[in-house]
Amino acid sequence: MIDPFSFIVVVACSATALLVTLKLIPVVSQWTLKADLWGYDLNKGHPKDGKERVKVPETMGIVPSIIYLLCLIFFQLFFPDSKSLATWNAALASIGFTVLLGFVDDVLELRWRYKLILPAFASLPLVMAYNVTGGTTKVVFPSFMADIVGFSTLNIGLLHLVYIDLLSIFASNSINIYAGINGLEVGQSMIIALFIAAYNIICMLQGSNTEESAFISDAAQFSLYVVIPFIFVSAGLFIFNRYPSCVFIGDTYTYFAGMVLAVAGILGHFSKSLLVLFIPQLINFTLSLPQLVGIVPCPRHRLPRYDPADGKLHAVKNHLTLINFALRLTGPMEERTICHVLLGFQVACCSAGLAFMLWAKGL
Amino acid sequence: MIDPFSFIVVVACSATALLVTLKLIPVVSQWTLKADLWGYDLNKGHPKDGKERVKVPETMGIVPSIIYLLCLIFFQLFFPDSKSLATWNAALASIGFTVLLGFVDDVLELRWRYKLILPAFASLPLVMAYNVTGGTTKVVFPSFMADIVGFSTLNIGLLHLVYIDLLSIFASNSINIYAGINGLEVGQSMIIALFIAAYNIICMLQGSNTEESAFISDAAQFSLYVVIPFIFVSAGLFIFNRYPSCVFIGDTYTYFAGMVLAVAGILGHFSKSLLVLFIPQLINFTLSLPQLVGIVPCPRHRLPRYDPADGKLHAVKNHLTLINFALRLTGPMEERTICHVLLGFQVACCSAGLAFMLWAKGL
Repeated sequence: MIDPFSFIVVVACSATALLVTLKLIPVVSQWTLKADLWGYDLNKGHPKDGKERVKVPETMGIVPSIIYLLCLIFFQLFFPDSKSLATWNAALASIGFTVLLGFVDDVLELRWRYKLILPAFASLPLVMAYNVTGGTTKVVFPSFMADIVGFSTLNIGLLHLVYIDLLSIFASNSINIYAGINGLEVGQSMIIALFIAAYNIICMLQGSNTEESAFISDAAQFSLYVVIPFIFVSAGLFIFNRYPSCVFIGDTYTYFAGMVLAVAGILGHFSKSLLVLFIPQLINFTLSLPQLVGIVPCPRHRLPRYDPADGKLHAVKNHLTLINFALRLTGPMEERTICHVLLGFQVACCSAGLAFMLWAKGL
Repeated sequence: MIDPFSFIVVVACSATALLVTLKLIPVVSQWTLKADLWGYDLNKGHPKDGKERVKVPETMGIVPSIIYLLCLIFFQLFFPDSKSLATWNAALASIGFTVLLGFVDDVLELRWRYKLILPAFASLPLVMAYNVTGGTTKVVFPSFMADIVGFSTLNIGLLHLVYIDLLSIFASNSINIYAGINGLEVGQSMIIALFIAAYNIICMLQGSNTEESAFISDAAQFSLYVVIPFIFVSAGLFIFNRYPSCVFIGDTYTYFAGMVLAVAGILGHFSKSLLVLFIPQLINFTLSLPQLVGIVPCPRHRLPRYDPADGKLHAVKNHLTLINFALRLTGPMEERTICHVLLGFQVACCSAGLAFMLWAKGL
């Protein structure tokens, strides 16, 4: 069951958070320009083609993420017992630490090894809280798989905690590398978050009075209240970051978004099936793998090529990303169009994923 | 009673944290210089006096504070029940959020109003956890005061929670404005932390088997484990920040330090008597008040004046700080000497404060 009072408060706060985000981004943009945190938009042409370049403020993910953290702090009021507060505070600590690392990365440009190691620490509070507050370390098989393997649950103990940690690293980095087109990072994160919210609401509406259902409903509430403010603050950022970008989001946002989505999956107790909402990210990760591990040389940027003659983006053969792969399938497209195509693909994948999650749960 | 196993692990981890701090500061110094985060040391003279100025890396507080947060995450293992984990995670969330705000402030140079408002939010998780996990909102009077007022405890309820929030704002900002001499900020913070550790250890050693004592001993353990890693990482930073400074610490460190000390007082359940360890900070705050509230014009820097003729710092009449007040009492001194004098004064005040705290507690 959904508690109507807290739900309304959470939505109202998140809507306020959206307004504050809209108001603060133009202000903070001036501060980041002053602090020399800006970049050129590489997909908008080059001075030698007669295009004038503008400085685009960078790292603007810091605005929605700090406003988001303030929302989470306020929502503590809905978790007034020490068990749920331990979990909620763990989420707060993990997401806060991730935002810190993302912002430090944007300002100081960390090496790859730190980028991989530090998020592993960031999600440890969550792992610990999951363990202490009685989160299950059992894998529950969907019924069709249970028929095949002959049992419906398997306790994998410590392995499950390791999985949770790896999931947060994957989620953060997979969004970070599926990037480079105006609005794509924020768009994909918002879409995944919307499907997580839909899944949780369906689970909660199905809740009956049995003890197990109450437990599931609690988990769904945690997860829902983590994603609702995220959807709103991301919407605020999207308005500035969509084509043509007035601001860039920085690693601050991509790490923040990945961690929020991972936390939502972990607290909602669907950390395994969460991956079915990440299909485009998994494809992009798989395509990128040869360059990530260094089998194929990896350039600093793996963007498509902007052609000033037709104003379109063209696939670059050696840049192994889903963006370039899509451009090879469809032919050259304008930046705005390819972004819409990729976000459409995200919606299609997430719809299939949600259907699978509900079917596997027997709903 | 002190649990010897966890105590040894905490000290060993903190010693490791010190080594990592020493190793990383020179590395990160290069990154901050590259990111254009540096400053001139105003107390070392001016090119027109024939002094060559060097760029000193700024914001180096980010190194000890991130390493410190990793320690706190690891120490979760010693709080395996949901009640103490809720408290510990609240501390982690509050300190982490404060470090984030400090670093954002260093990079983007926030206005004063944000500097005051945001720390108020940062300590809310702590206020909430204090409330939920059964922290007392009673003021316990020392026996001499109980004799005067006629009762020994007074429940001030919500007011106490407001006090906790104000305390964290005061602690962070009071260290931030008692600053400007090489090594002073880190030195004062370390000294206060050492006295907090001493107080907690004395309380724990006095612990007997009564239920109330066990509760006090738990609180003392929280507080002790918060300050031990802080003392070690600060020692690492001090080695680089003492006269002549190779690095500056930034608001990242002063806010971080203030919040750690406030958290130690709150979790240790001596948030009221904590102020007796902040006497130099209280004096400096009182002296600064006319400039802080704008009765007297407040310049950007309120440092003493460096005289290249004698290489000493001279008091500046209009800069209302304890540093200038001390220089007026003693006459001009070298920077290293005035720092030692002020840190000596801190030790003297804290010794008196500790004696008062133990006496008031009847130990």
